[in-house]
Amino acid sequence: GGDAVPGVWGMRMMSTSSVAATEEAAKEEAKKAGAEKKEVVVNSYWGIEQSKKLVREDGTEWKWSCFRPWETYTADTSIDLTKHHVPKTLLDKIAYWTVKSLRFPTDIFFQRRYGCRAMMLETVAAVPGMVGGMLLHLRSLRRFEQSGGWIRTLLEEAENERMHLMTFMEVAKPRWYERALVITVQGVFFNAYFLGYLLSPKFAHRVVGYLEEEAIHSYTEFLKDLEAGKIDNVPAPAIAVDYWRLPADATLKDVVTVVRADEAHHRDVNHFASDIHYQGMELKQTPAPIGYH
Amino acid sequence: GGDAVPGVWGMRMMSTSSVAATEEAAKEEAKKAGAEKKEVVVNSYWGIEQSKKLVREDGTEWKWSCFRPWETYTADTSIDLTKHHVPKTLLDKIAYWTVKSLRFPTDIFFQRRYGCRAMMLETVAAVPGMVGGMLLHLRSLRRFEQSGGWIRTLLEEAENERMHLMTFMEVAKPRWYERALVITVQGVFFNAYFLGYLLSPKFAHRVVGYLEEEAIHSYTEFLKDLEAGKIDNVPAPAIAVDYWRLPADATLKDVVTVVRADEAHHRDVNHFASDIHYQGMELKQTPAPIGYH
Ligand SMILES: [Fe+2]
Ligand SMILES: [Fe+2]
Ligand SMILES: [Fe+2]
Ligand SMILES: [Fe+2]
Repeated sequence: GGDAVPGVWGMRMMSTSSVAATEEAAKEEAKKAGAEKKEVVVNSYWGIEQSKKLVREDGTEWKWSCFRPWETYTADTSIDLTKHHVPKTLLDKIAYWTVKSLRFPTDIFFQRRYGCRAMMLETVAAVPGMVGGMLLHLRSLRRFEQSGGWIRTLLEEAENERMHLMTFMEVAKPRWYERALVITVQGVFFNAYFLGYLLSPKFAHRVVGYLEEEAIHSYTEFLKDLEAGKIDNVPAPAIAVDYWRLPADATLKDVVTVVRADEAHHRDVNHFASDIHYQGMELKQTPAPIGYH
Repeated sequence: GGDAVPGVWGMRMMSTSSVAATEEAAKEEAKKAGAEKKEVVVNSYWGIEQSKKLVREDGTEWKWSCFRPWETYTADTSIDLTKHHVPKTLLDKIAYWTVKSLRFPTDIFFQRRYGCRAMMLETVAAVPGMVGGMLLHLRSLRRFEQSGGWIRTLLEEAENERMHLMTFMEVAKPRWYERALVITVQGVFFNAYFLGYLLSPKFAHRVVGYLEEEAIHSYTEFLKDLEAGKIDNVPAPAIAVDYWRLPADATLKDVVTVVRADEAHHRDVNHFASDIHYQGMELKQTPAPIGYH
């Protein structure tokens, strides 16, 4: 439920009128900073402004290049966390039990190391949106038809999950065998989801819906341990403060709360997408919930 | 050079405070419209608002679900159309001649049917950004590192190209053998670019840079024929008027002009990306030109 207010940020990467002035500035800078010269010259040659001119609402420098001020939002934490799609059809039940059975090895591997668990699982969570978005994009091109906004919705989900990862990376550092595991899991899951999405998008979105329900559950457990003092309630990483517009003194608890709200939104989007397929429609026939996160 | 002003659009898909009211409204509507009942109920169950509430700046209904009012922009048509990267290295020369040699069959196939040519080529043009964005996304997850904004930049390029296609579809209808050709070409090009990007992103971005230079050339030819009256200067499709914020009486000529400006921006982005690799850096080390189109 992002009520982002992109208008309050008074700048853009590139504005028509400022190109000439900027290139001049870039040249000036190049003269001064001998070391950076090469890069700046290339930028200036292609007319591409450095994004270092970005500032926050309070005028301080924007330090992220992986997301922009106008992509930040306030999470809708009032979302119903308990909503559950009761599996009715055989396909739903297979989706449900597939996800449930994946929980046992995960629980054993991570035990109650929720920070580490969150970080690892976000590397997987960011795959389905990218695969779905890409497949719908290619279909849109092949069939000469629009997507009803679903391409963007799914890619937004992937980006949101990637931001979750960028956040948890700041509180838990992956060890070498965890890195190796991520590479293996991605290789398997990317291909499995790719194939699954081609064979049955109905099933694929349902699986993601249930994965998100599990994510909500595991973030709730994370919060319980934070509240019980079993996990240190460290200050929120700077990237999280900026991305979710949190107060400067926000803590890990606040971060987990907004991430959990995001997962609830993903749950809705994916169960909804599956429901559309169950009604015998294609996604493009129903406008997508762009910006619903 | 989009100086989009997202702030002027006074609405969002979903705002925290309006959820309850909206669900009520959805239920009301469901009672009234018997035929649409089923869909509305599903939406309302997942808390997902219909996007039909979107309006334009002038208060009229927004009719597109494949893009949103705040994604529209004014094209920077002052961009230098003649900029060219002179191939110096062997790799650059291979990239250059690969693209040049692709022009002969294309010229023969389409002759001077530029509308048709534009439509067909946009189905191909939308592939590299998606492939590059996806590969960088997966790498970002595997390596636990940010992308410097390049994922979003490349995905934005893909979306922009898809919008070109949506626009030209309105002025040229594909025939059955053209549809078949698109499917074949996509199958080959997607895989070739995927592999190429894995092997040498430096080469892949350079190829796209040169493809964009050719695109600029072919849109310039298109404009010449429009000006000479050889092609009918029909009114601009409604989707183009909304996407590029064109005046209501805009024509195909205006559309081709802004599309050509977009291609010049893609040329810059891709040559720039290739140059970064030539400097022995990875893309993430240089902030990406998000919103540069
Ligand atoms: Fe997540
Ligand atoms: Fe999620
Ligand atoms: Fe294009
Ligand atoms: Fe292009």
